[in-house]
Amino acid sequence: MDFKKALNSKRDLVNLAIEKTLDERFGEGREESVLYKSCKHALSAGGKRIRPALILNACEICGGKVEDAMYAAVAMEFIHTYSLIHDDLPAMDNADKRRGQPTIHTIYNDGIAVLAGDTLLTEAFAVLAKGPEVRKLKAETYLDVVAVVAAGAGVDGMVSGQELDLESEGKQIDLPTLQKLHYQKTAAMIKASLKAGALLGGADTNQAERLADYGDKIGLAFQIKDDLLDIEGDPIEMGKNTGGDENLNKATYPALIGLEKSREEMMSLINGAIDLLEPFGDDGWFLRHLAVLIAERSK
Amino acid sequence: MDFKKALNSKRDLVNLAIEKTLDERFGEGREESVLYKSCKHALSAGGKRIRPALILNACEICGGKVEDAMYAAVAMEFIHTYSLIHDDLPAMDNADKRRGQPTIHTIYNDGIAVLAGDTLLTEAFAVLAKGPEVRKLKAETYLDVVAVVAAGAGVDGMVSGQELDLESEGKQIDLPTLQKLHYQKTAAMIKASLKAGALLGGADTNQAERLADYGDKIGLAFQIKDDLLDIEGDPIEMGKNTGGDENLNKATYPALIGLEKSREEMMSLINGAIDLLEPFGDDGWFLRHLAVLIAERSK
Repeated sequence: MDFKKALNSKRDLVNLAIEKTLDERFGEGREESVLYKSCKHALSAGGKRIRPALILNACEICGGKVEDAMYAAVAMEFIHTYSLIHDDLPAMDNADKRRGQPTIHTIYNDGIAVLAGDTLLTEAFAVLAKGPEVRKLKAETYLDVVAVVAAGAGVDGMVSGQELDLESEGKQIDLPTLQKLHYQKTAAMIKASLKAGALLGGADTNQAERLADYGDKIGLAFQIKDDLLDIEGDPIEMGKNTGGDENLNKATYPALIGLEKSREEMMSLINGAIDLLEPFGDDGWFLRHLAVLIAERSK
Repeated sequence: MDFKKALNSKRDLVNLAIEKTLDERFGEGREESVLYKSCKHALSAGGKRIRPALILNACEICGGKVEDAMYAAVAMEFIHTYSLIHDDLPAMDNADKRRGQPTIHTIYNDGIAVLAGDTLLTEAFAVLAKGPEVRKLKAETYLDVVAVVAAGAGVDGMVSGQELDLESEGKQIDLPTLQKLHYQKTAAMIKASLKAGALLGGADTNQAERLADYGDKIGLAFQIKDDLLDIEGDPIEMGKNTGGDENLNKATYPALIGLEKSREEMMSLINGAIDLLEPFGDDGWFLRHLAVLIAERSK
């Protein structure tokens, strides 16, 4: 099957499930709620729904069905979106636009943006506690999925990455710190997606561990590629300036270990990720393709 | 047993559990983390730990032990504290102090305060997913507790109450709206505490429903009493001005239905709450005492 087709078909399913979940949770009279409108706006801003696709695919290749993991895909996208709403606040990255759309705090105000993020984070766990419509696995597994997602989003993951990011602003940081930042801020939630999907597909320990490691590797590779594109990327394709001095002064992989070594490091992570998929045979094609795409993307 | 002694003894146990949980979650090197210091500061600011006490007591009177519900008491206090940190932000209530202590955004900055709140909310669910050290009940029950807490904190409860509060500022609202605001913003989390405790104590459906209703009633009564104290309270005991015009213009129970009717409404809620405890017999003494205290407090 064509990768792009497969990704888009998952994205469409996830978008439907997100809309349905949001409408159900807010219920009657939702059109009058600023919170509903904020959450809906932030969730409709597009995006490839990579994390949901990872959950659904991991579930499938471990023996489950897409619908067994759809609720977790929705929850993960809620959490990803909450993190973007809070990141965009003037008190954080101060971004007026996200994917070409005005951010929540510019449409309403900072208070509503804080609250909309809080809402999506809380509702993500409401969705996780409910589980899929048909529970095929033991309740322990659904509880484990809550733990996996909370670990990805909490002190072991995303919020600590965000803390490091805030603290590193305008400072020189060393490679281990930058690596930790990328692992926590980006890779932790990607890893959690794969782990949650694996659990919901009924994975054995070896499968779950391999997919989690794959997530760690592509998560870090993605960030190194980002750093590389900031320097080498085509400014027109990237939609922003590249190669500027500010990019060389910022703590990035190329700034810390040079372009050549950064490229090598990224390729070694991608190849390591692909190796981990070996026991999945042909079923691993989607994740293999995704790994290659991360290395080859030009924007 | 003396009520105050019982409340303080629960508070001390909860404080120890909070500290232990926080230290474990942040692990080695935590003293260097601004997030750890923020969460610890916000959680140490005092407070009676009413919600944890409700969880622990509900668990006990339904047949459980304090340690069966301690983890949920910690999680509930994490969520309560996250809501205070975000409420105090300049974008919300703009409070410099909370219980005499400087608020997180005044010690660090708004970004750290947003992030510290996000951390406590996420970690609350990490704690809930882990459950108590010894799991005596089915995994379903622990999953139900996650759902109950998420419902209290999410769209069905606290965040929607906060939305109503933000939207009502400077506006005249009617009684049903004010009642909804109080139910969602305050009563929902009190109700969730009692429900979670009941579940963890192995309550039957009737016990769980009675305790949940008790929570709804004392939650609303607490807010009406707050409104009354704003007008009738002793300014010295209250530590703030009372009886001012601003209090009469604000949407409050006395402003909407008058002092006399507000008092009656509050007493009727308190008596209704106490009636619900009937099947618990002597075991209900703590919750009965708490209900009376809400009506009689002078600050």
